[in-house]
Amino acid sequence: MTDYNYIDFFGFLAALLTTIAFLPQLYKTWQTKSANDVSLIMLILFLIGLICWIIYGLRINSIPILVANIITFIFNFSILILKIVYSKNNH
Amino acid sequence: MTDYNYIDFFGFLAALLTTIAFLPQLYKTWQTKSANDVSLIMLILFLIGLICWIIYGLRINSIPILVANIITFIFNFSILILKIVYSKNNH
Repeated sequence: MTDYNYIDFFGFLAALLTTIAFLPQLYKTWQTKSANDVSLIMLILFLIGLICWIIYGLRINSIPILVANIITFIFNFSILILKIVYSKNNH
Repeated sequence: MTDYNYIDFFGFLAALLTTIAFLPQLYKTWQTKSANDVSLIMLILFLIGLICWIIYGLRINSIPILVANIITFIFNFSILILKIVYSKNNH
């Protein structure tokens, strides 16, 4: 493996892991029907941050930044929706 | 503001928001002494991903990638430690 490929490998692995990491959270929230311990402020700040990453990715024409952040946005937005729904049901 | 500064602004804001987002989660976990709803698999995958980002940042000599991911790692590692400690205390 060339040095360039080796560096790229870590970049792709990094983007992949920090994207799919939210899938087990989404699954857990769906299964337990509870996300009380998940911070609402974290989700909101993170989602606004992801929108900024998407704008940045569009501006610098970076497909990896765009793809990774759009998928991460979908996962985290779904967690936020579930949190709100389950929070209402528990009251 | 030049077009370059405008693009950079979104990049910095994105990195800032997706980094500090985990501070309210850390504070909430500390306050409630509970992180049962936070997925352990998410934390582990995310931390491994952040290590890959740090290696990538070192390799391409990117200070913003390094700084953002080291801080995010510290926050998430702390959340993981608290989750393990509180989980043991509740058993």
